[in-house]
Amino acid sequence: MTESLDSARLAAWRAYIESSQRLFTRLEDDLRADDELSFADYHVLVLLSEAPGQRLRMGELASRLIFSPSRLTYQISSMQRRGLVTRQPCPDDRRGSEAVLTAAGLLTLREAAPHHLASVRTHFMDDLDDAEVACLTRIFERLGQRLRSTRDASTPHATS
Amino acid sequence: MTESLDSARLAAWRAYIESSQRLFTRLEDDLRADDELSFADYHVLVLLSEAPGQRLRMGELASRLIFSPSRLTYQISSMQRRGLVTRQPCPDDRRGSEAVLTAAGLLTLREAAPHHLASVRTHFMDDLDDAEVACLTRIFERLGQRLRSTRDASTPHATS
Repeated sequence: MTESLDSARLAAWRAYIESSQRLFTRLEDDLRADDELSFADYHVLVLLSEAPGQRLRMGELASRLIFSPSRLTYQISSMQRRGLVTRQPCPDDRRGSEAVLTAAGLLTLREAAPHHLASVRTHFMDDLDDAEVACLTRIFERLGQRLRSTRDASTPHATS
Repeated sequence: MTESLDSARLAAWRAYIESSQRLFTRLEDDLRADDELSFADYHVLVLLSEAPGQRLRMGELASRLIFSPSRLTYQISSMQRRGLVTRQPCPDDRRGSEAVLTAAGLLTLREAAPHHLASVRTHFMDDLDDAEVACLTRIFERLGQRLRSTRDASTPHATS
């Protein structure tokens, strides 16, 4: 394998990485201005709202967010102070703990979601035609599957 | 405009955002393991290496990286301590300053680039066929143009 990319792939890579960084910054600016949430806050609220009982083990949440344990502890502590989540011991494992969505957290998400989705539409999705939407889905679903499978092969699963 | 996304666009958006976050984390893990660089360090080295005289005004660099002035100051101070860049007053504006790539910075980039590009290929680009590469380029070049033009319309350009 040579290490360089051919010119078409290098152009694609640079357009993707630069525009994506710019997009994520813009979306986070909107989230902070509209609802005083960071991107990570929003993502935690979505994951907890979709989990059974609106709760997830800290290890599972770290793995879903691709956060280190210390970064997740910091993130959840900050959200606890704002009343968006609480932390409770796991019922089936006294050493582990779970993050639990509060009612205030759910209401915050319900208020923020339409603003955030409008921002996603305005900055990105409304500009794509159906063929581009299908292409985006195909590329990034395959990427996600591959990255999840190689992580699982190389890293032991967090359990607490 | 309704605020929600249709189901095809929501699926595309979620695949894109989740896989991209996972990819960026993986690439940064590789950069740190191979060359002790963060994603931001690498990006600064690339931008300076491509600039005339291997130097850029701090305001221009912040704008290209989409960093706030305080975040850029922190980033450049950290790279100065590691000998990768220096800071100098602008020749044509005594209040402004420039970040300048050092020889050690250039050598670090030359060593890191093939590792990083191999990591980009392995995790992402080698899996795409030519039609997907073309689609990725089209979508993200258009996105970048739009985000740059709306930023320039709403935010005065940094000048220092």
